[in-house]
Amino acid sequence: MSADEWSKSEKGIARRAFDLAYARECKAIEEELKKRVSELHDPKDLWSLHSYLSHRLRETERKYDYRYSVLISVFAGLLHNGRLAIEDISGLSGEKIEAIKRIAEFLDE
Amino acid sequence: MSADEWSKSEKGIARRAFDLAYARECKAIEEELKKRVSELHDPKDLWSLHSYLSHRLRETERKYDYRYSVLISVFAGLLHNGRLAIEDISGLSGEKIEAIKRIAEFLDE
Repeated sequence: MSADEWSKSEKGIARRAFDLAYARECKAIEEELKKRVSELHDPKDLWSLHSYLSHRLRETERKYDYRYSVLISVFAGLLHNGRLAIEDISGLSGEKIEAIKRIAEFLDE
Repeated sequence: MSADEWSKSEKGIARRAFDLAYARECKAIEEELKKRVSELHDPKDLWSLHSYLSHRLRETERKYDYRYSVLISVFAGLLHNGRLAIEDISGLSGEKIEAIKRIAEFLDE
């Protein structure tokens, strides 16, 4: 399959990888939130905490875009920031894997 | 002093009572936040938590308005919702205390 076309099996792999990365992202936000909540000691910290959460949730909404037209770049970004490993997308066509790795390496630089 | 004029001593009492109520308000938000964070178990809970925090902080900003022109109503509201006790504003003129109690009782009904 080319980088533009997604077979039924690839769609299944993509969906699972996407959901896995999303769950990891939410877990990371949750962990950071728990840490920050345990460190609260001034009323104004509540406002900083709120800003932090607003920022992370907005960023997450933006980043997790499950449209096949952008999924290659999305996966590259998730590989780049460690939410996905290459094993998590194993089963996608060689062409897609190569495209994802190429963009991820570009982001790593 | 009438309900419209504030002596220097009353301003001191008002400021302390206001700050005390504000600290109690933030403490209550913090406690509720800690409880909700400890109960997180689904990614979408992060969004509910964020909505809760947005709502409470917005409400707090709106409620804690330290302008002498509105302070009687502000204190009545804080008495009504338990953030202040009548002892916390002791020292204000009888006229102010009466006005505050009257509005608080109206809110209680």
